[in-house]
Parts: sequence; C-alpha cells; structure tokens
Amino acid sequence: APPSLRGLFTTEEMQTAHKLRDLALRDNRSYEMLERLTTEVGARLAGSEADLRAVNWAVAFMQSLKLDKVWKEPVQYPVWERISESASVISPFPHKLQITALGHSISTPEQGIQAEILRVADLAALKALPAGAAQGKIVFIDHKLRKSAEYGDVASGRSRGASEAARKGAVALVIRSVGTDSHRLPHTGVMHYDDGAPQIPAAAMSNPDADLLNRMLQRGQPVKLDLRLQTRSAPDFTSYNVIGEWSGTELPDEYVLIGGHLDSWDPGTGALDDGAGCMITAGALDCLIRQGLRPRRSIRLVFYANEEQGLLGGKAYHTAHQQEISRIQAASEADSGQGPVKRLDSRVRPEALGIVRQMQEVLAPLGVAAGGNQAHPGPDMGVLHDAGAASFGLSMQADDYFDYHHTADDTFDKVEPARIRQSCAAYAVFAWMAAQSPLHFGSGPALKKS
Amino acid sequence: APPSLRGLFTTEEMQTAHKLRDLALRDNRSYEMLERLTTEVGARLAGSEADLRAVNWAVAFMQSLKLDKVWKEPVQYPVWERISESASVISPFPHKLQITALGHSISTPEQGIQAEILRVADLAALKALPAGAAQGKIVFIDHKLRKSAEYGDVASGRSRGASEAARKGAVALVIRSVGTDSHRLPHTGVMHYDDGAPQIPAAAMSNPDADLLNRMLQRGQPVKLDLRLQTRSAPDFTSYNVIGEWSGTELPDEYVLIGGHLDSWDPGTGALDDGAGCMITAGALDCLIRQGLRPRRSIRLVFYANEEQGLLGGKAYHTAHQQEISRIQAASEADSGQGPVKRLDSRVRPEALGIVRQMQEVLAPLGVAAGGNQAHPGPDMGVLHDAGAASFGLSMQADDYFDYHHTADDTFDKVEPARIRQSCAAYAVFAWMAAQSPLHFGSGPALKKS
Ligand SMILES: [Zn+2]
Ligand SMILES: [Zn+2]
Ligand SMILES: [Zn+2]
Ligand SMILES: [Zn+2]
Repeated sequence: APPSLRGLFTTEEMQTAHKLRDLALRDNRSYEMLERLTTEVGARLAGSEADLRAVNWAVAFMQSLKLDKVWKEPVQYPVWERISESASVISPFPHKLQITALGHSISTPEQGIQAEILRVADLAALKALPAGAAQGKIVFIDHKLRKSAEYGDVASGRSRGASEAARKGAVALVIRSVGTDSHRLPHTGVMHYDDGAPQIPAAAMSNPDADLLNRMLQRGQPVKLDLRLQTRSAPDFTSYNVIGEWSGTELPDEYVLIGGHLDSWDPGTGALDDGAGCMITAGALDCLIRQGLRPRRSIRLVFYANEEQGLLGGKAYHTAHQQEISRIQAASEADSGQGPVKRLDSRVRPEALGIVRQMQEVLAPLGVAAGGNQAHPGPDMGVLHDAGAASFGLSMQADDYFDYHHTADDTFDKVEPARIRQSCAAYAVFAWMAAQSPLHFGSGPALKKS
Repeated sequence: APPSLRGLFTTEEMQTAHKLRDLALRDNRSYEMLERLTTEVGARLAGSEADLRAVNWAVAFMQSLKLDKVWKEPVQYPVWERISESASVISPFPHKLQITALGHSISTPEQGIQAEILRVADLAALKALPAGAAQGKIVFIDHKLRKSAEYGDVASGRSRGASEAARKGAVALVIRSVGTDSHRLPHTGVMHYDDGAPQIPAAAMSNPDADLLNRMLQRGQPVKLDLRLQTRSAPDFTSYNVIGEWSGTELPDEYVLIGGHLDSWDPGTGALDDGAGCMITAGALDCLIRQGLRPRRSIRLVFYANEEQGLLGGKAYHTAHQQEISRIQAASEADSGQGPVKRLDSRVRPEALGIVRQMQEVLAPLGVAAGGNQAHPGPDMGVLHDAGAASFGLSMQADDYFDYHHTADDTFDKVEPARIRQSCAAYAVFAWMAAQSPLHFGSGPALKKS
C-alpha cells in the first residue's frame, strides 16, 4: 500500500458492499426497467417528438424510484431527421442497396445523385488523394470494423469523411457501415461538416452491400450509384437532462454521478445504446435504495439528452454545474452496452487508491479485473473529466455491441438478463462505495493534470 | 443384399466415383459460379425484369459449361410486385415496425388500415375462433419457427392465414416472420387467397417486432396498428426454365435431373434460396464434364422459373415432359441452402437398392448418412415424383437456413466455400453414379404407388 494511504473501509462497510453485490446480482429490475423503456417509449431520436416523450417518461420513472429529488435541466440543440433514403447500383449490374443517411447529412437533390464511386480503404487514404481526385464522384470509404477496439479509428471515416471527400471534389460520400456484423442493416451515426468545406450528402451501407460493391470493383468496371437522401434540419429544440438524486447523510453536497444517455438513433429502440446504460445505473441505485443504504455522499443519476449528435447533454451538464467539479466525488457513465463489466479503472488522487483496491476486491468475484488509474468516465461525463472530476471506467464486454450499434437491430430481444444483472451489481457496488468512501477522490485542478 | 439384386458398379467405376468425389471436394467453382449469379444478376423476383435478365444470364452461363445442348422452355405466370410497405403501432405506444408484404397480397387502401390486432398462437388457433371473432381486426399470427423441421407447419400460417382470418371477419393479416433469426429483417414468402373468401392484405413482421407486440399485449391494453401495403398484379408474364444437357453414351434418352430454381424473392439476392442449389448442381455437372466423364445416360441441369410463387417452373416442366417419366432415371433438386449434405435418401425400385448403397458408400466419407427409400426430390421435381419418377433426396444441414430465408439477408456473404464444396461433391457423385448405373431405377407407374 502507498505510504500516503489515509483511509480504508471498515470490515462492516466491506460486508455491506459484499451483501449489496450479491443482492444486486440476483435482481432483475434493470432488465425490467429496460423492457419498459424500449417498449413504452422505443426509439428516441434527439430533437424528435420521441425525445420529449422519453423525457416525460424518464421523469415519471425516476419519481417511481423514490429518489429524494428529481428534476430536468434544459439542453438546446438543432433538429435533424431522416425523411427517406435509398440507393441502388445503376451499373455494371443493377442492385438495390440497404443504406441509411448519416446524422446531420444534407439531402441529395430530389432526383438523386448519379455518379461513379471511388473506393478508398479508409479516411487516411482519402486524405492522401491528390487534389481533385474525386471530382464528380461518390467517395466510398470501405473501412471494415473488425473488432470493437477499432471503433474510434473506423468511425472517423463516418464523422469526417464527407468534408474530406468534398475537398477532393466528391459529390457525395458513402461508407461501409461501422459495424462488426454481416446483416443488411446499415449503421447510422453522426457526421460533421467542417467549416469552409462544401457540404455533400453522406450515407452508410450495410456490410453485405459494401462486399457487393467490392465484388463489382474487382471486375475492373466502373460502378455507378444512384443515391437519394431526404433529410430535414431545423434550428432550435429544447430537451432536458433528467436527473435524480439520492441524498447523502454526512456530505450531501458531494456526489457520485452515474447514468447514461436517454437519446438513441431512430432505426432501433436504443436497447443497448444506451437504454442499457441508463437502466443498469438506475437499477444499481434502486438496489441501494431498496436496501435502505444511505451513503455519506449523494448519488446522482443522470439520463443525458442528445449524446449521439455531439454530447450536447454532457456539455450542458458541465455548463450548469461547472462550479461543482470539486464536489463530484466520482463520475462514471455506462454507454457501451449490456456488459458484463470486465474491468474497473479509476482516475483518483493517489491517496485514494487503497479505496479503489477495496472496490476491486468486492468486484473481483463478478469477473471484474483491476485496471489502472487513467480512467475515462464515458462520453457525456468526459467534459467533467477534462475539467478535473475524479473518474471511473467500468469497461464492458463489447464483442457483440457493434453488431447492433446504431441499427434497427438495437432492440430489447438482444438483451440478456444475466449480463444486465452483473453490470447492475458492479455499478451498485461502485456507486455505494464511492459515495460512502472515507476519502475524497480528489476532483479539482490537481487531478485535471493527471 | 436383397436376393433380387441384379447389378452393381464395377470396381473400376467405384474408383472413378471416389476420384470424382475427391476432386469435386477441392473444387471451388460452385462457389465462384454463385458469386457470379449473385453479383451479376442479384435479386430475381419472378415476373420482374430481373427474371428475364436472369434467364438470359443463365443461358449464357450454361453455354459456357460446354454442355451438349442448352435450351429454354416457356413458363407462364402472373406478375406480382411490392411497391411500398410500412407499418407502425399507433397505440398504446408508437413504434415503427419492420414488415414486408407477403407475395400475392393485395394492397391496403392508400391511407392504410388502422385497426386493433387480435393475436392467435397459430393457424389452428385462428381456425378455432368462433365466427366473427376477428370482425374489423388485424389478425396477428404469432407462430414462432424454432427449428427448420417445423417450417412446413409454421409456413401454413403465412400461406393460408389471410383467407382464414378474412372468414373470421378480419380486415388484414400480419404474421410473425417464418424465420429462426432475431434480426429486424422480415421474411416474405407466398400466400394464397382461397376462392370465395374475402381478400385482405397480408404482411410479415420481423421476429423482434413480433416480440414487441407481445410485450405490449402482456400489459393488457389493446394494440392498434397502421398497416400500409401497395402491391401490383398483372396477368401475363412469360419466363423460362433454362435447361442444359450433358448427353449419355449408351442411353442418351434416359436422363438424370438435377438443378434448382432460378427465381428468388426480391429483398435479398437469392444466394441461399436458391442460387446455391443452382450452382451446387451446375458445379457438380461441370466437374464431370471437366474430368471427361460421360456416363451411360444423359444428365439434365434445370434452372426452374418461379418456384417461389407456386412451383410454376416445376409444373411447366412436367407438362412439357410428361411422356418422359419412365425415361427419368433419377431426379433430385437442391433447394435447402448451401449444405453440407447430411443424408442420401432414395425412392427407387427395390432391385436398385444395391446401387443406392454403393452411392452411400462413396458419400459416407463426406459425412453423408444413408437414409431410407421414401425420398422426395424437392419442390419443382415433386410433380415428377408424384408422376412416378425415381427420386433422390440429398438432405442438407439447415440449422441456419431459415435465419436468412426470404429476407434481405439472403446474400453471398453468408455462403461458406467449404459447405458449398461438400454439397457439390455429393451432387457430382450422385449425378454420375445415377447416370452410369447398370440398372434403371424404376421410374413409372409401379414406383408411383410406392
Ligand atoms: Zn451511446
Ligand atoms: Zn451511439
Ligand atoms: Zn427455394
Ligand atoms: Zn424460397
């Protein structure tokens, strides 16, 4: 143990944590809560009428958990929605393709765009093209996601490909879906237009469709597509972060932040992304409450608005709470599916690492490995992390997550109760131990540099 | 051995069969042929322009195999096509559903049909309802396909549900897709309207959507749908069975029939149903030809038109060739995916069972079990079987076939070269041994009764 260690949990507290873990592991409520969200609300595209339906549902839901406080905080963002989308190969062989507009894409003309494709292996290959190389063409980024760990790299083609392609003269962008599956269900996701670059329409096709284009290209003939996207944008929409608090006994103004994002993409019902994260954390808090556990510090459950289109909820939370960074005992968002949790990382001051090890000791029987001290707390809480909040990462098994991510297939039938229960148990232990900790975890300017 | 056994293959012939099997097993041409069909033609809905494109492609393809004769025989049928299809839950919770019109379904009114659903477990439960029980409702047949063997039973709800529902007063039919998967890709397939029953629109939803409806129904509230189908029918279309022949030496007027159906449903590219069957059998014949094997009898490769909408190609073949039943040495169609072949069944006169056992001996190292003597030769050849043709069944492993069957997911990426090679080897052995057989297999009136 490091010499600076100044506090640890008592034997009695450790027993409470073990008991909480074991009870949560047998509790199916996170799963049932997720069933309710995906059935009673369904798809929750930010900026749609379903966004506000979801907010109202979430407020009533949190109230039903008997939290001490439930409130909403406004989040503003523009509206984007898909109206229609279709694509086909015109030549050398006619085929219909399964495509989806990328979030924030502009429309094509109503009569569509008909042009030859130019295949590039990935975003780097696109950037390396000479000026004008894609003049009049539809750039096709064919970057295949082989495993979850490559997501950030492969998704850069989705988020930044259109502007890069436009700078090379392209009239549209199509990408191979950023997904690990082989089904005819394209994966959507957000994209951004760089200031100054021409705006061109952008869509993703399913992996089997990308395979088909490759087979045509291997014949050495030009491949010509007809791409038709109709989307709609509008400037102002107000939604809400939905927040509930279970107040602490000794230090109620300090709090542990857990939660997920309430918005989803529109093709599926956001069961895994991120209904699961919301309900794993809600179920964890519910376990504490039903066992009558009131830790020293408060626990806040946050369902963020509009993570998908640019972390808008996370940024709004930070703006509204930037004076409270030092009062955030710990932050950890669940946004990588249903679990199980495989590793616990922290980012705390060194003096608190003994506490982290005690957490890891309680979580070890769940199959949770001990990680390092450079945790990231997830997308919406990333802003707080960057501002110096002590952070935890409960890394989840994600080998099938990107099979379903951002597709019509992200539905409740993919959820396995045992995986959700383990994740709920891990979050319950984390939340209670972080809130009950004898030590502050060090949020503030010092941690910001670490 | 039965006392009536009058002929067996010579040792030399058996060696040829072993060699053919081993060479075919290392030959990837069936796979490559299937790549060509699915890439260069794609979806092949009977009655569409793609139907005729496929026929032209198939004629050129068979010519490239250096067969002795290639010809087309006309097949007439009406046109049916889908124009648009959508459905949503209106209440208690709004959701978009993933649905597909069933083949031959009429349209809904343009403004759709809005009505409450009445769930029934299966077709039998629908039939058992009292008169008028479904008055004004959309009947929802919720029969789940759990394994391939149940296909015939479960598919009866698809083919016959609409007329049964209409007789109980229903305004439309929706069914749980007849598929073993859990993806948001509905399974289409043909349906029939009974004479005298009112015609109502009919569609299938994906399995996850059917699960969703069940979760809503479990809440005890009425579930109301909005169903919109636009389809089109036209009376007369002429397509073709495409036939190629490799002529025999001693008995060229007797022939072994192998093949598959060339048409497919429109959402996918008919890779497994039934591009695989066409190309497994084409590849098998191609192996024979390239090895310079000319058996005693001829081998005919038939790519049937429009199996999907009522065995139209099979019926036309029978009509055109009904005087030749006794000259069909053996018939076996491949129409259950990519294999591997797991069992060889026959329906031959008892005197020929020794030959069948020799076939089974050659196929045993491929993992092909010996079956019985009540084989069915597949859908299009079923009419010939019923007319007394000696028949063989090369049963294929089908545990994943109904994951993809009749969906957008029936695409080339699902095909595994090793499975296709094994199936090709089994068909090559079967075709050559049947055509080379020292005995006639007994097609004719006597076999008809067996
Ligand atoms: Zn997410
Ligand atoms: Zn997401
Ligand atoms: Zn078929
Ligand atoms: Zn079929």
